[in-house]
Amino acid sequence: MKSHTAYLSFDIQARMAFQNITTQVEAEVRQSGVREGLVLVNAMHITASVFINDDEPGLHQDYAKWLEGLAPFDASPQRYRHNRTGEDNADAHLKRQVMGREVVVAITDGKLDFGPWEQIFYAEFDGRRKKRVLVKIIGE
Amino acid sequence: MKSHTAYLSFDIQARMAFQNITTQVEAEVRQSGVREGLVLVNAMHITASVFINDDEPGLHQDYAKWLEGLAPFDASPQRYRHNRTGEDNADAHLKRQVMGREVVVAITDGKLDFGPWEQIFYAEFDGRRKKRVLVKIIGE
Amino acid sequence: MKSHTAYLSFDIQARMAFQNITTQVEAEVRQSGVREGLVLVNAMHITASVFINDDEPGLHQDYAKWLEGLAPFDASPQRYRHNRTGEDNADAHLKRQVMGREVVVAITDGKLDFGPWEQIFYAEFDGRRKKRVLVKIIGE
Repeated sequence: MKSHTAYLSFDIQARMAFQNITTQVEAEVRQSGVREGLVLVNAMHITASVFINDDEPGLHQDYAKWLEGLAPFDASPQRYRHNRTGEDNADAHLKRQVMGREVVVAITDGKLDFGPWEQIFYAEFDGRRKKRVLVKIIGE
Repeated sequence: MKSHTAYLSFDIQARMAFQNITTQVEAEVRQSGVREGLVLVNAMHITASVFINDDEPGLHQDYAKWLEGLAPFDASPQRYRHNRTGEDNADAHLKRQVMGREVVVAITDGKLDFGPWEQIFYAEFDGRRKKRVLVKIIGE
Repeated sequence: MKSHTAYLSFDIQARMAFQNITTQVEAEVRQSGVREGLVLVNAMHITASVFINDDEPGLHQDYAKWLEGLAPFDASPQRYRHNRTGEDNADAHLKRQVMGREVVVAITDGKLDFGPWEQIFYAEFDGRRKKRVLVKIIGE
């Protein structure tokens, strides 16, 4: 069994943003030499997500608006108890649960085994700080 | 390490539907010969989900109604920017994020290592076209 | 390839609760002897979740309140068709989909490859009965 580990770094200036990381994950798969296996891609921070969907800017605006409706930003400690700790990012911890922490993707014949529109995104919900994504590959 | 890859095909005529695929996944596990390992089951399309829950029709009606409340179908480009592209399925991209893209299930002693009520479902949120689910098994 | 399987047991008296299980998962990783690989941690019951987020009690109160807003408890068969079966836990099946069934975590150099605040939680949405979590480790 082969394994390969890589860390992608982000420092996004917006509070909320979506960034396509498919090319970076593909590069790690190539470097791993794995032909058949699995790749795990996960946010290492708890106010961020990794998810798979369409690379369409309108859709990303829809996600942002929809998540803001489901879990509105509110820095005050009245709506969110977490913000009594001095943080202002409780909403980001909620948004991240809707979009998920991680994806697991099959590697077949040395490539991400994707449907026609699948792309991997890093989603930031509490930007303006350094964050990382883990790419872990196992297989043969 | 052994690996096994299979693709399940769907062509569901309803816009939204839930289909139990546990038997099909079990058949792939048997065919793989893997006794200890993991199976990844994921939608290959971004307006569909794979999830694990109860095979109870009333619950599936509850999911449908609840998801419609969280992310209503609306073909117009006013509510959803994605629908300015000519698509009418922005709601399906949102519903899929709530229900998830994929499940990873343990294989123990040659079988899906499931609790008493766990069943695997394909969830369609934008039907009337051909779609696929990937089953990827690794282990020994 | 090595593999290791363990089952954690829970009997939580509250309807809804969040319990940190990171130490228990770490113990299984050590016992497995795996240095590079993946660990799957999943609820074996369909009204419970396993998720990764912050070990901060205020945040857990925020999750509880937020989930209650998204999918309110209602034992009557009017709101939820699932409760026509004699169950009263349809809301728990919905809450579990928001928080997720499982997490997959990388094992690097014999340890959970975690960011600074990542902790693994068992989330109970329909307590007062025995439930289990599966820990499956594969790697080398």
